[in-house]
Amino acid sequence: MEMNYVIDTFFAIFAMTLIVLMVPGFAMLEAGLVRTKNVSAVLTVNVMIYAVASMAFLLIGYSWAFGGWDHQDGISKYAFFMFQMAFVGKTINIMSGGVSERSRILPLVVFTIVMASFIYPTVVNITWGANFLKDTMFDISSMYDLAGSTVIHSTGGWALLSAILIMGARRGRYTKSGKIKVIPASNIPLVTLGALLLWIGWFGFNGGSVGSISSKESADAVALTIMNTNTAGLAGAIIAWIIIYLRYKLFDITMILNGALGGLVAITAGPDLYDIYTPILIGAIGGTLVVFAVPIFDKLHLDDPVGALSVHLVNGIWGTIAVGIFTDHSLLAQLKGIGVVALFAFSTSFIAIYVINKLIQLRADDDEQLEGLDAVECGMEAYPEFTRTI
Amino acid sequence: MEMNYVIDTFFAIFAMTLIVLMVPGFAMLEAGLVRTKNVSAVLTVNVMIYAVASMAFLLIGYSWAFGGWDHQDGISKYAFFMFQMAFVGKTINIMSGGVSERSRILPLVVFTIVMASFIYPTVVNITWGANFLKDTMFDISSMYDLAGSTVIHSTGGWALLSAILIMGARRGRYTKSGKIKVIPASNIPLVTLGALLLWIGWFGFNGGSVGSISSKESADAVALTIMNTNTAGLAGAIIAWIIIYLRYKLFDITMILNGALGGLVAITAGPDLYDIYTPILIGAIGGTLVVFAVPIFDKLHLDDPVGALSVHLVNGIWGTIAVGIFTDHSLLAQLKGIGVVALFAFSTSFIAIYVINKLIQLRADDDEQLEGLDAVECGMEAYPEFTRTI
Amino acid sequence: MEMNYVIDTFFAIFAMTLIVLMVPGFAMLEAGLVRTKNVSAVLTVNVMIYAVASMAFLLIGYSWAFGGWDHQDGISKYAFFMFQMAFVGKTINIMSGGVSERSRILPLVVFTIVMASFIYPTVVNITWGANFLKDTMFDISSMYDLAGSTVIHSTGGWALLSAILIMGARRGRYTKSGKIKVIPASNIPLVTLGALLLWIGWFGFNGGSVGSISSKESADAVALTIMNTNTAGLAGAIIAWIIIYLRYKLFDITMILNGALGGLVAITAGPDLYDIYTPILIGAIGGTLVVFAVPIFDKLHLDDPVGALSVHLVNGIWGTIAVGIFTDHSLLAQLKGIGVVALFAFSTSFIAIYVINKLIQLRADDDEQLEGLDAVECGMEAYPEFTRTI
Repeated sequence: MEMNYVIDTFFAIFAMTLIVLMVPGFAMLEAGLVRTKNVSAVLTVNVMIYAVASMAFLLIGYSWAFGGWDHQDGISKYAFFMFQMAFVGKTINIMSGGVSERSRILPLVVFTIVMASFIYPTVVNITWGANFLKDTMFDISSMYDLAGSTVIHSTGGWALLSAILIMGARRGRYTKSGKIKVIPASNIPLVTLGALLLWIGWFGFNGGSVGSISSKESADAVALTIMNTNTAGLAGAIIAWIIIYLRYKLFDITMILNGALGGLVAITAGPDLYDIYTPILIGAIGGTLVVFAVPIFDKLHLDDPVGALSVHLVNGIWGTIAVGIFTDHSLLAQLKGIGVVALFAFSTSFIAIYVINKLIQLRADDDEQLEGLDAVECGMEAYPEFTRTI
Repeated sequence: MEMNYVIDTFFAIFAMTLIVLMVPGFAMLEAGLVRTKNVSAVLTVNVMIYAVASMAFLLIGYSWAFGGWDHQDGISKYAFFMFQMAFVGKTINIMSGGVSERSRILPLVVFTIVMASFIYPTVVNITWGANFLKDTMFDISSMYDLAGSTVIHSTGGWALLSAILIMGARRGRYTKSGKIKVIPASNIPLVTLGALLLWIGWFGFNGGSVGSISSKESADAVALTIMNTNTAGLAGAIIAWIIIYLRYKLFDITMILNGALGGLVAITAGPDLYDIYTPILIGAIGGTLVVFAVPIFDKLHLDDPVGALSVHLVNGIWGTIAVGIFTDHSLLAQLKGIGVVALFAFSTSFIAIYVINKLIQLRADDDEQLEGLDAVECGMEAYPEFTRTI
Repeated sequence: MEMNYVIDTFFAIFAMTLIVLMVPGFAMLEAGLVRTKNVSAVLTVNVMIYAVASMAFLLIGYSWAFGGWDHQDGISKYAFFMFQMAFVGKTINIMSGGVSERSRILPLVVFTIVMASFIYPTVVNITWGANFLKDTMFDISSMYDLAGSTVIHSTGGWALLSAILIMGARRGRYTKSGKIKVIPASNIPLVTLGALLLWIGWFGFNGGSVGSISSKESADAVALTIMNTNTAGLAGAIIAWIIIYLRYKLFDITMILNGALGGLVAITAGPDLYDIYTPILIGAIGGTLVVFAVPIFDKLHLDDPVGALSVHLVNGIWGTIAVGIFTDHSLLAQLKGIGVVALFAFSTSFIAIYVINKLIQLRADDDEQLEGLDAVECGMEAYPEFTRTI
């Protein structure tokens, strides 16, 4: 009994550590995808999100999500908190990444507080937590979402969608005639490093979400979860490579990595439920969705420099549906869960971002965007000794 | 009993995670060592190797290597698979790194499939696995190779040697009069980051290869293994520093790091067998071999931009021999193992690469190399905003 | 009993691995903070410190610190060694980082040997180790310093202070009229990556220092320690952000990260002793101290390119005092410990560095600094293809 407590606490710490590795993961990914004139700003946002979101969750959000500090038995309450805390920033990373290169930092910090103390904890409350909607018509606790295809990724995705709708595209991204101007990523090694750190972090994210490793059954469940998580990422990467290669005869590393991330998001709802081959299908569909969603969002002029809508929102939905398709879990329950979270996360985020943007201007002015957020917001270039050509 | 299963499964997951950290490790190391015009291509290759090799191993190679999915008892079969899967890409990383800046990506992917579904699994089969050569004259199962000095590093090294022989050097690397043109690494921080991630990954590689941690004896064996692994890396770095410093009065960070990696490869065959001081000698010899092998291969016009032949092939052999010298294990058995693997890995790789190169041209043309593989293969610069001067 | 041994050994290996992740952490942080012309030298120093310090500790320092190899019972002696070894380089990293851009490498390596075989092991001996001062007037074993606010961070800080006093500032840092010339960091993504790796490494540093995880009580203590460690980092980052933002209306990512590191150093003496809210205060004070100490040291012309005096020395002292303020531990004992370590570490470092500087010139000449240490010491540019403008 005590040994179970010990091992599960240790395992939660291990898993949490991998998830926190996603902080540099997101930071490097986004810093590599934006232009050099916005890199310091993007990095600042990533660090601030971790700091502010975690603190807000500690002081406010956690109790609201789980109904207090003493609900768990089999594991140290501090380890459980840390594991849950490591999730919070991710929802905001998804949103902030998608509005990179055009958002001012202070308003983002304010939104981070709203997200980490209210919006995300409420989503957790009604899915994994205290469930204040129990026995109401909005009760979605029968949705199966092991590690957050909906709870984390869709929630962040809906927040991002509302932000993009309110803020519009980056200056110069779409010409007046509606043409799309391609803005190349500034540092591909950072993109690769970041995506691979996220991939590894996912082992902790999904594996840790099993909640216990201290019995033979749970050890198998954890190992299967991690294996299936990885497999879906492999499949997403491979399919994205194939589709792009067939079309352009080129290898697009950013699309391959986004395909992998799409597969990882898609498997997140039920990695413990599938046999070892089904994740190939789920991940491949996930990667395919990313490849086709990216240009569609672009045609809709939903400007998303890092492809977060395609990776997190589309695949968050797909992954949650997949559980309803490939397992015995009710598809209806999955759809209802997707719908309720969509309704709540989109509307609250929309209101919060709308108000924040009105009061303290989330969107940077066009001339600020032209100069670059590093100069305007940070007073600091990211690479002051490397000549800029764009 | 159940607790042993739980702890060993957890430990395998921990070790596997460290090994997967070698994916960004290799990617950053190689991206830093090549010229900027080839960085996106190198990164693409690294990600593709992980994706394709792992998938091929899941679908084909693993069963062939170990004779099915149900051979292990004391650990979750999913964790065991993941641990083994994490190894596969390494053999191909070794090969792909050494032919950087001159190899087209699609043929490399094809070779990845051959390596991960046939060549490497066959080597595993006859050493750590099902052993279809049992009781034949080629039976080498008495070779001691804990974590793969021969099974991983030499195998990858032989594949690389065959690739270099078939493909020749990079355009412009050796002048017509036979002079060597030095091509500087483009990003030393990435080289350092990558090598250090590999170093840390090695703790999982070798420590995890002990196979169990759940008894006092095995816990000691794991800890000794990790300590000795690290010590050999330290010694390799120090000796490489000293030799280069005595000769040139300069500190060569890439050679220091390659010396460390050489020491790490050398200890990999028997880190659990030595007392805590012997690894100093083994690692120091490993680092010395790297320092002297690099210019020798260069004189032979075996062009290897990352020093992989010296690090992995030479030290893979040295490390396997060292077990025969410093322990009671038969030197003859070690040599026989080295020989059989050499014969098999070199010949099969040679045939595969030769055929692939004939059919779909592995080597990039000289003008493609001049333009850079990023433009030709990826349509994407790695650092589009940083001026190029080479 | 055996299970405790197994789990505690595994946990020590886990914690050690996180601490070794601080090697790339420090390397990337410092490589990002200096000018491009000194990046290869800084990276070389970081790798050499890990290699040489660890080897010296293995051969000499460890036995002196702990009085031999067989003092621990509940954990593999190899794991215990590795955990302790992972600490050593940190004290020297603190010193070397603060004298970046002006120190020659070979003398630094010599000092590394002195520090790792004598100065640091002596500090460990009288605090966590064999304690040869037992029952003398200098006995400071009643100081509480769980993971080394004093033992590691102040010790490194005192060594740095003595080095700065002996070596003086970088060429051109202060004009003849006493003005301060700002020298911008060359690579902000590396700074961010490095600081975040340090942050994650701290979980192992402090968590592992609890020494055991294999009982319910110790599992709680480890989890609380890691949670509190993280919280102090959050608070340090947030307060540094607020202070700088209120003053300059800018987001200073390097100061935010140094604020976080200051909070992390400050909590290190007693993360297991506090409730979950006190670390907010301790970390916030830590971050505040960094923000105000950096310009003060600069006014005193104590040139410290990475802010190590403010982060490690000031907060090492503050963190050790904090235990005396916020817990039942005697403030006097804490102050006495700070004083004795200060006296010993500063004086021995001063003597060692003074002698080294006299004999083999630690400080690079002004013209060498102008040319850059990469050219002079390494014969290798860090980014040869990126144009330099500074």
